[in-house]
Amino acid sequence: MRLSKLISIALLATSITTVSAQADDLIKKAKDVGLKAVPADKAELMKLIDDPKDPITDKKVELGKKLFFDPRLSRSGIISCNTCHNLAMGGDDGIPAAIGHKWMANPHHLNSPTVYNSVFFTAQFWDGRSPHLSDQAQGPIQAVPEMAAPANLVKERIVSIPEYVAEFKAAYGDDVNISFPKIADTIATFEKTLVTPSRFDDFLNGDKKALNDAEKKGLNTFIDKGCASCHTGIAIGGTMQPFELAGKYKFANIGDFKGDDKGMVKTPTLRNITETGPYYHNGAIWTLEEAIKEMGSIQLGIKITDSEAGEIKTFLKALKGRKPAIIYPQLPEESATTPKPTFD
Amino acid sequence: MRLSKLISIALLATSITTVSAQADDLIKKAKDVGLKAVPADKAELMKLIDDPKDPITDKKVELGKKLFFDPRLSRSGIISCNTCHNLAMGGDDGIPAAIGHKWMANPHHLNSPTVYNSVFFTAQFWDGRSPHLSDQAQGPIQAVPEMAAPANLVKERIVSIPEYVAEFKAAYGDDVNISFPKIADTIATFEKTLVTPSRFDDFLNGDKKALNDAEKKGLNTFIDKGCASCHTGIAIGGTMQPFELAGKYKFANIGDFKGDDKGMVKTPTLRNITETGPYYHNGAIWTLEEAIKEMGSIQLGIKITDSEAGEIKTFLKALKGRKPAIIYPQLPEESATTPKPTFD
Repeated sequence: MRLSKLISIALLATSITTVSAQADDLIKKAKDVGLKAVPADKAELMKLIDDPKDPITDKKVELGKKLFFDPRLSRSGIISCNTCHNLAMGGDDGIPAAIGHKWMANPHHLNSPTVYNSVFFTAQFWDGRSPHLSDQAQGPIQAVPEMAAPANLVKERIVSIPEYVAEFKAAYGDDVNISFPKIADTIATFEKTLVTPSRFDDFLNGDKKALNDAEKKGLNTFIDKGCASCHTGIAIGGTMQPFELAGKYKFANIGDFKGDDKGMVKTPTLRNITETGPYYHNGAIWTLEEAIKEMGSIQLGIKITDSEAGEIKTFLKALKGRKPAIIYPQLPEESATTPKPTFD
Repeated sequence: MRLSKLISIALLATSITTVSAQADDLIKKAKDVGLKAVPADKAELMKLIDDPKDPITDKKVELGKKLFFDPRLSRSGIISCNTCHNLAMGGDDGIPAAIGHKWMANPHHLNSPTVYNSVFFTAQFWDGRSPHLSDQAQGPIQAVPEMAAPANLVKERIVSIPEYVAEFKAAYGDDVNISFPKIADTIATFEKTLVTPSRFDDFLNGDKKALNDAEKKGLNTFIDKGCASCHTGIAIGGTMQPFELAGKYKFANIGDFKGDDKGMVKTPTLRNITETGPYYHNGAIWTLEEAIKEMGSIQLGIKITDSEAGEIKTFLKALKGRKPAIIYPQLPEESATTPKPTFD
């Protein structure tokens, strides 16, 4: 072998070692700021999302899926959970603020958050008023500008449908009490399974080539700029943080939301962010670049340049996750006693 | 073997032969009045539903499915074809009359028909104004009280989404013209695959035990009462017939529909009829028994008794078909140039 070839091989080996070491450093840096991967191991993931008091089972998930897609949970019979949390569209509705019953807009002009990976949030709703998905699921079904169905109506619809009753018994036992909270619990059990691992997770889990160089650079910029101070954990968001900490949002005139009574807001997840525009609590920003730069000034009090925003966006694209395959359900038939839809 | 046992066997054999002969007679009787099965043989089915000039392919069907489920085909971005033709609910919306853009009711108070098996209809819409699904699909997307999206807006949305453009090229070739009619054609190609063979088809195709005795009796009553004079062919409906031929519908005051300009109406399919209530063009009847009896007096000028209506209903339940499994799609991301949703 000629010396030049040997040198080439040596350089290549060095370069591979360097890249590998750089990736190790970046993984450590990401973990140090609190970014976490969706566990690749299913048992480990289950430990995070499952509740031993109400364990996730195939029967509950299948039933919860039907309920999630069933528009008969709304007063009118035409709005389902999936209408605003569309699993085909990143788990939200793609419009600035939710439109619900009678074409009512959300009164605070709040943007529908994604349901994907919401199991990892420490609080639900923009003002974090709900501690978990079982509680959260009760809200929009009853809210007048959303699905507008009183709890009793929802319960009466479900218990009047023999196949649903049979499926609740199969899922929970013959003595199940098919209450409104139980219906919401079952929807939440389905929602817990809506976890979308991405190439970023593969990277954090040790596949050093899962991100390309530009994405690694973007991750590094994301961390260096301080984005991970709020967008952290497995959800890369989903915790309560101070609202408009460093400045005012330039579209603050849309809606009257000011956070919770302590001025805190639930940070949105950045997973599948390219699918969940428009952005912010009032859905007034349509491009990621603009959202990134605005966040710098509102939350971090810094200027993020166009090129830095571009780098961060390149990283964020790698958070697009692998969605669980969902067979579109066949919903059970109502009976003669099923309460009819009403449109007022 | 004792004589009594021999006699038993002989009687059983006679009885089996009789049942078999009776089934043969009933199958012949059903076919004689024009009832037809969905072919069990896939090639034979394809001959009926495929168009050699625009053949059904997996790529077109998958793309058409995405478009069918994509609410961005509506002005607001929140109403899809599936909103009113919900494939989870027998292919319709389960409410009396369609609710669309801005919560507008259908101006003629017309009930949304099922999309399942609509490929077998000889005319589309209640007044039959459309000859086939490709033409039909253009209607509700543009109709102001439905999806309210002008053809140009739909086209601009689709061509602004790179993944859709790539899928159209993959389905039709690189020189495809992604026009509004092409978008509708692709939706129609997906809809053509929404065929739901039932136990009734198995019976007509020769499985004599596919219907039980009560269902066979119901089929016989269905034919004897004359129901098959309109509800015939593979669709068991789907052709133009005189509207209110023998009498006035008792809920005629709901809506102003009078059929087409010759007083004809498209007979609804009876396939999956237990899933597609409420019934009639104005969706004013909620139970099958009542619908059956009313049809007797309105269309046939006869009285159908409660027990006959019960028999016919028992048969109609056997028309509940096996739905094609549909993986809920993941819709492609819009781009910066995608026209925004509007709610006015």
